[in-house]
Amino acid sequence: MCQLLGMSCATPTDITFSFTGFAARGGQTDHHADGFGVAFFENKACRLFIDNAPSCRSPVAELIKRYPIKSKNVIAHIRKATQGSIELENCHPFMRELWGRHWIFAHNGDLKDYSPTLDGQYRPVGGTDSEAAFCQILQGLRRRFGYEAPSNAQLFDAVESLTRELTHYGVFNFLISNGRVLFAHCSTNLHYIVRKWPFNKAHLLDADMTVDFSQTNRQGDCVAVIATKPLTDNETWTRLDAGQLIMFENGLAARQTVIPIPEAVQRKNAENLACA
Amino acid sequence: MCQLLGMSCATPTDITFSFTGFAARGGQTDHHADGFGVAFFENKACRLFIDNAPSCRSPVAELIKRYPIKSKNVIAHIRKATQGSIELENCHPFMRELWGRHWIFAHNGDLKDYSPTLDGQYRPVGGTDSEAAFCQILQGLRRRFGYEAPSNAQLFDAVESLTRELTHYGVFNFLISNGRVLFAHCSTNLHYIVRKWPFNKAHLLDADMTVDFSQTNRQGDCVAVIATKPLTDNETWTRLDAGQLIMFENGLAARQTVIPIPEAVQRKNAENLACA
Repeated sequence: MCQLLGMSCATPTDITFSFTGFAARGGQTDHHADGFGVAFFENKACRLFIDNAPSCRSPVAELIKRYPIKSKNVIAHIRKATQGSIELENCHPFMRELWGRHWIFAHNGDLKDYSPTLDGQYRPVGGTDSEAAFCQILQGLRRRFGYEAPSNAQLFDAVESLTRELTHYGVFNFLISNGRVLFAHCSTNLHYIVRKWPFNKAHLLDADMTVDFSQTNRQGDCVAVIATKPLTDNETWTRLDAGQLIMFENGLAARQTVIPIPEAVQRKNAENLACA
Repeated sequence: MCQLLGMSCATPTDITFSFTGFAARGGQTDHHADGFGVAFFENKACRLFIDNAPSCRSPVAELIKRYPIKSKNVIAHIRKATQGSIELENCHPFMRELWGRHWIFAHNGDLKDYSPTLDGQYRPVGGTDSEAAFCQILQGLRRRFGYEAPSNAQLFDAVESLTRELTHYGVFNFLISNGRVLFAHCSTNLHYIVRKWPFNKAHLLDADMTVDFSQTNRQGDCVAVIATKPLTDNETWTRLDAGQLIMFENGLAARQTVIPIPEAVQRKNAENLACA
């Protein structure tokens, strides 16, 4: 299966520490070596880095580990292909524009017999079920709200409803963000931690690296890190329930709900933790 | 003013040589230091790197100079801001999806009193006239052809017609590509060179660097490089006429025409070579 990494913060924060551990899983400490990607929102702008080289040795990943890009919303993905070939066009995250903002999406899962009816406003460039699902979500949002962006509360309800439709097709762990809020949905496997004042030391699971966040962060800073598996071995991560959808804003879980996963899908999900 | 760099090739080619000279103009040999960007098509995928640091010293530019990404269509831009602040969201090139393909656009110029009516399918994220023009072009293409991609001949006619509308607003040198073809339009300043068998040596104007392309390229390779100002001092570059629109495909000028620039605009263009 693939792995997801997300970050939501109150103040622009660099993700070099978490990304260093995460990138090691792309071919070094784990086998997610079929490409990777990471997207950083900086105000309304978004930088998207993708590479079909394994993240443990990609020059692009090296840059990201060394270049502290400050962002309030980050989504990253390392890929172990199940659907779609190992092509750059199939690397997550995917990016589109809606309501004058960039949207970023990454998926860990496997949607079976899934071929959505897309009206053409958003079309996948690559061959993954994941990018098709992203297009379906954006199409659904546009149909619901037309050309004016909704409030975050309205957006949450719409994402919940669109996610509910998609969970019928299989494993659908995903992260999606418009640079203001970041949604995390768990079908099978997703964890998070919120770091805030007083900050502590953290030690990576996948590399012998420790950071003392009390030296780098201040009162008022608040950072939520979301990852398929915990990234550190000395902190307590919260496992999301199956079906849980959380909307993070400024580093905090602003809204959340649980979308029941159909029983037939639950059984399949337990057997099959793959990723497109 | 800003500067543009484009490349269209018969076979995937790296742009490290041309980009090295071009990037030096972003704060070292010239003053285009308000951010830069470069987009590489790799089959249907597109990698877009942007940075608001000057290209002469940006770590992202360093990566691109050292990481030979092979691409058949590349668009790069170094910015000297006139409209829109020095924010990352205003860095060219801009990217959107149309007909299941990424589209990339970069502009050198200045559109005056320009506020297009955008129906919302494509909306600018930043504050430049350039991104608004890109949205207007894509909206125009979608209106003309609906949800099915046209042939390259039909596309050429449509881009010509949409460009004709936009040249009324001022300086509109631009590059646009969907990864298959690359359009170059000249209002005031754009040059190109086609390198093919037998290849020769080339020496940069902005750095003491020489490459012997006969050692790196083979028969059948064909590379068009398009740039605001010639990048080498030992080759003959062709200056595009004012109003000239060329569609490059596989390194060759596949179609071209000249769109007359209104006289009033010509006079203004001569005075004003700025860039958003």
